[in-house]
Amino acid sequence: MAMASATASVTGVCLAAKRAARPLASCDSAVKHAALEAIAAALELRTDEVLQANAQDMELAREADIGAALIDRLRLDSERVAGIAHAVRQVAALPDPVGEVIEGRRLANGLELRKVRVPLGVIAVVYEARPNVTIDAAALCLKSGNAVVLRGSSAARNSNAVLAEIAAEAAVAAGLPEGCVGLVSGGGHEELAELSRQSATVDLIIPRGGERLKEALQQSATVPVIYAASGNCHVYVDAAADLEQAEAIVVNAKVQRPGVCNAAETLLVHEAVAERFLPRVLGALDAAGVRLRADERTRALAGRGLAPEPAGEEDWASEYLELTLAVRVVDSVEEAIEHVGQYGSGHSEAIVTRDTAAARAFQRGVDAACVYVNASTRFTDGGEFGMGAEIGNSTQKLHARGPIGLRELCTFKYLVEGDGQIRL
Amino acid sequence: MAMASATASVTGVCLAAKRAARPLASCDSAVKHAALEAIAAALELRTDEVLQANAQDMELAREADIGAALIDRLRLDSERVAGIAHAVRQVAALPDPVGEVIEGRRLANGLELRKVRVPLGVIAVVYEARPNVTIDAAALCLKSGNAVVLRGSSAARNSNAVLAEIAAEAAVAAGLPEGCVGLVSGGGHEELAELSRQSATVDLIIPRGGERLKEALQQSATVPVIYAASGNCHVYVDAAADLEQAEAIVVNAKVQRPGVCNAAETLLVHEAVAERFLPRVLGALDAAGVRLRADERTRALAGRGLAPEPAGEEDWASEYLELTLAVRVVDSVEEAIEHVGQYGSGHSEAIVTRDTAAARAFQRGVDAACVYVNASTRFTDGGEFGMGAEIGNSTQKLHARGPIGLRELCTFKYLVEGDGQIRL
Repeated sequence: MAMASATASVTGVCLAAKRAARPLASCDSAVKHAALEAIAAALELRTDEVLQANAQDMELAREADIGAALIDRLRLDSERVAGIAHAVRQVAALPDPVGEVIEGRRLANGLELRKVRVPLGVIAVVYEARPNVTIDAAALCLKSGNAVVLRGSSAARNSNAVLAEIAAEAAVAAGLPEGCVGLVSGGGHEELAELSRQSATVDLIIPRGGERLKEALQQSATVPVIYAASGNCHVYVDAAADLEQAEAIVVNAKVQRPGVCNAAETLLVHEAVAERFLPRVLGALDAAGVRLRADERTRALAGRGLAPEPAGEEDWASEYLELTLAVRVVDSVEEAIEHVGQYGSGHSEAIVTRDTAAARAFQRGVDAACVYVNASTRFTDGGEFGMGAEIGNSTQKLHARGPIGLRELCTFKYLVEGDGQIRL
Repeated sequence: MAMASATASVTGVCLAAKRAARPLASCDSAVKHAALEAIAAALELRTDEVLQANAQDMELAREADIGAALIDRLRLDSERVAGIAHAVRQVAALPDPVGEVIEGRRLANGLELRKVRVPLGVIAVVYEARPNVTIDAAALCLKSGNAVVLRGSSAARNSNAVLAEIAAEAAVAAGLPEGCVGLVSGGGHEELAELSRQSATVDLIIPRGGERLKEALQQSATVPVIYAASGNCHVYVDAAADLEQAEAIVVNAKVQRPGVCNAAETLLVHEAVAERFLPRVLGALDAAGVRLRADERTRALAGRGLAPEPAGEEDWASEYLELTLAVRVVDSVEEAIEHVGQYGSGHSEAIVTRDTAAARAFQRGVDAACVYVNASTRFTDGGEFGMGAEIGNSTQKLHARGPIGLRELCTFKYLVEGDGQIRL
């Protein structure tokens, strides 16, 4: 059984995962599918055990007074456990990325070349309070043929221990190799630093957390890291925008789920439509409970009853993750692109326009994972993009950019077959 | 002009490259093509200038007594300059990777999604003595729409300065943005460390050098690095091998160009054919001037007149890069896979066999960039693979694995177009 006991070392868990990685990489899709179905079934069967462990975490959390928001993220009930099991079955139903021929050709000398998707090997996932990530991450990693090392928050220690045990036992019983699901948990920064230096066994670390986690890893990591990072996203309403469409998109991008990384944080409005557009959109945002912070030109046009606070440099750089929006008037699509280039985090950016030239300039000029024309930034999501479930969203440019789905948890190798070819 | 003068700071050169990156990313293929043609023409026109600067470097190198091998790598003559110009024209003729639609689909809500290849931005290339890399790297980076920061060896300082000046002047005259080719050179380890921390402006560092360069960068780099790394490559001759084919492949993989990363360093032979195969292959290798280091079973079967030295742990781990080969007898394809897993560097591995089951087991079980069946490891090369010129070979698993060609110098973005879609 691949669970880390209280005494299991980080190195030991990673080594066990490394040993599991090679047989796991060769597992047939059917075996991986059966393992995920077994995990889902075991979660349902052992719901009481999960809830008992979670109750312990909740009690400790209340004693430690960690705050209502964190406590809600920590809390499980039978409905939430059923939801986790359902999510595992959805991952099980996705196509297996391993073995997919990405491209191939016959070379001039008769060699047959195929570039084939294969697992990365061992993936460590570092996350914060929510215990459902324990299962989500395990399901995505196993489905993509990777062994997984989980490192959750100490606040969810008891929940995570039971969840990881359920996943590991069910996976191994279904035929996956021992060690394929490992858990390290309970330690502090030293544990994280130790995990981030396991380059002999771990192929990738995916941290799901805030800037503090990122900074801690940047200090210590020798293992490659893909940061599932923050999003400072913009909606730019162009001179040629359909203003009704623009209003709906701005409100949706800000309000529909403000706490996520693809929500909008800044609205840019072309000066040619500012006078007509700002009063209506700011009124709608205000009605939806959005606090506004704006530049001088916006404040002058805000309309009756609205007095946005002045926005400063720190507002353009902020990822509010709440019902606050920064607003600025710009003179051109070029100035909007400049603003996005200066302050954006490379996540999701939108232009609203009917002008093909403006759309083209924005799509070419903005350097971000996802660039939208006439749509909300909120669609940046593996599920929405048809990639299936995701483990996070990458704002870096190497390997994975945008949603990190099953394919992004893989690498590839070139398979080359001949009949004695030598190089002349 | 984008040349670094003696006083230009690393930060200054990188910042100029960053400023060039956005307009460069939007440059049409025709402009980039014209720029590369202009660089080739300027090299031909200014050959005397290049050779004068190179003569200065050669004189300093002789005074510093850096050794005949390094001096040969440093040396340019009019034929070599013509060769560099020819290589630039070959890169110019390759298809432009930028703008290629990697995949795309219409989503359920009508959004049109395209995943489109775009430049990374600014690429720093760090290399050793050979001055031709200055132009090769600049050509590959510009063709893929990236600004480039070059950091050559101080031994080639004068040659590199003229070559980078020629490339930068010709590129800018042909319409590429100022700063698109930058050079930092002459400093020591501090300069390299400073370059490796320019994460605000540089998107990727590609070091072309040995283990010492890799270690230096691992200590300091905050910029992502793709190591164009070493190759400890194996040929495994299976029980079911065609022994004539096997002999040709082994000799080719070792002898054809022993100083490169895809040359073989260890031969593994299945015990069932060891007695028949070893005398003939070791004789052929010996005749080709190869020194042999072997395990006990091999030494016992080596045949008359051949007395390989005993191989130790360090031989299995060595990348000789010269006419030396380690040889070992194994009991099974599984043992060969284990050996490769333990000692291989994940570069290029070959099996010689007529047995489909053994071929399949080896291709699945070996975790390397390129896995060959019945062919020499020497084919791992961007040109051979139909990818065009390469800037190196990656043995890491993230982003680029195997040959690093034009596509691997790019990232992608998702372009999403709609008519007012919002998320429900």
